[in-house]
Amino acid sequence: MRIVLATGNRDKVAELEPLLPGAQVSAAPEGFDPAETGTTLLQNALIKAEALRALAADDGALALADDTGLVVHALDGRPGVFSSRYAGPDATYADNCRRLLEELEGVEDRRAAFVTVLVGLASDDRMLVAGGVCPGVIAPAMRGSEGFGYDPLFVPEGEERSMAEMTREEKAAISHRGRAARRMAALLQLP
Amino acid sequence: MRIVLATGNRDKVAELEPLLPGAQVSAAPEGFDPAETGTTLLQNALIKAEALRALAADDGALALADDTGLVVHALDGRPGVFSSRYAGPDATYADNCRRLLEELEGVEDRRAAFVTVLVGLASDDRMLVAGGVCPGVIAPAMRGSEGFGYDPLFVPEGEERSMAEMTREEKAAISHRGRAARRMAALLQLP
Repeated sequence: MRIVLATGNRDKVAELEPLLPGAQVSAAPEGFDPAETGTTLLQNALIKAEALRALAADDGALALADDTGLVVHALDGRPGVFSSRYAGPDATYADNCRRLLEELEGVEDRRAAFVTVLVGLASDDRMLVAGGVCPGVIAPAMRGSEGFGYDPLFVPEGEERSMAEMTREEKAAISHRGRAARRMAALLQLP
Repeated sequence: MRIVLATGNRDKVAELEPLLPGAQVSAAPEGFDPAETGTTLLQNALIKAEALRALAADDGALALADDTGLVVHALDGRPGVFSSRYAGPDATYADNCRRLLEELEGVEDRRAAFVTVLVGLASDDRMLVAGGVCPGVIAPAMRGSEGFGYDPLFVPEGEERSMAEMTREEKAAISHRGRAARRMAALLQLP
């Protein structure tokens, strides 16, 4: 099976590829960057998968899109669908982390969850959906250099380390994206 | 098939159980109360199903979560995902109903819909999603004592009575939760 990932984010490609064993995984064409105008993860994932299919770069492949958000309890679920542009349209990962720390200054309830929704559009136009969640807490400061995004601030439930202090394999075993990808692989009957 | 409901809400358990005939349905362990940090019904349902699976209370069972919201047209879809805590974190059903009546005081457009999203996580990690909607209007005052939540204020399309003036069977035949549960039962190939 051939899978084209409907994302321009190299970090997502690097995480997803080893989670889809037995498939030939490739990245979206250079410059792929559809407007993520949706108000939910499912909407944005569908927008990206549909945009990739519209390019018809590889008609026989599954177009697979990932939309992921960090939902923080004390912030009524923000930044959620706006996670990657929380500190502004051109925000870096570190900018977003700093903004989150500022918003949570003095806030005792640090509960949060990472949520991933994957949408696959197959060549026969079947649509497959899989999701994954990782509950945890927001740390008081950034720690670690692995992973990406909010990983330096996110301590999964039952862990002491932030996600950025874990190896890729450790993170994948418990992460939102790992769980979602294994479910998608099951739907695709990958080995 | 064994199904464990990922909810601490006894009213939801009572409604869902008869809608899943042929399955052995049980409730989540006492005190089950994951933080519902999501910004959408799907996210929160997934969060609850995932939290139940993490407990591994019954590994061979389907973990089934319900997230339901009342979306009111004149309020741009509020209270939506915040329906159960509309009047505050410890709000009672009656508190939430009163808050809604206040918000809609003098508002002519009373259109609303109840929406349920069900997420099932199977023991083989398949993820099943089903949804149901019931359109209607918000009544000018609370009526009836059956059901729960906003039922005393919600008059389904084509009905004169509020949902709290219907028997459980009458409500299930047309309700958001009834529709979603029958769709989930079909996915699970329950009789």
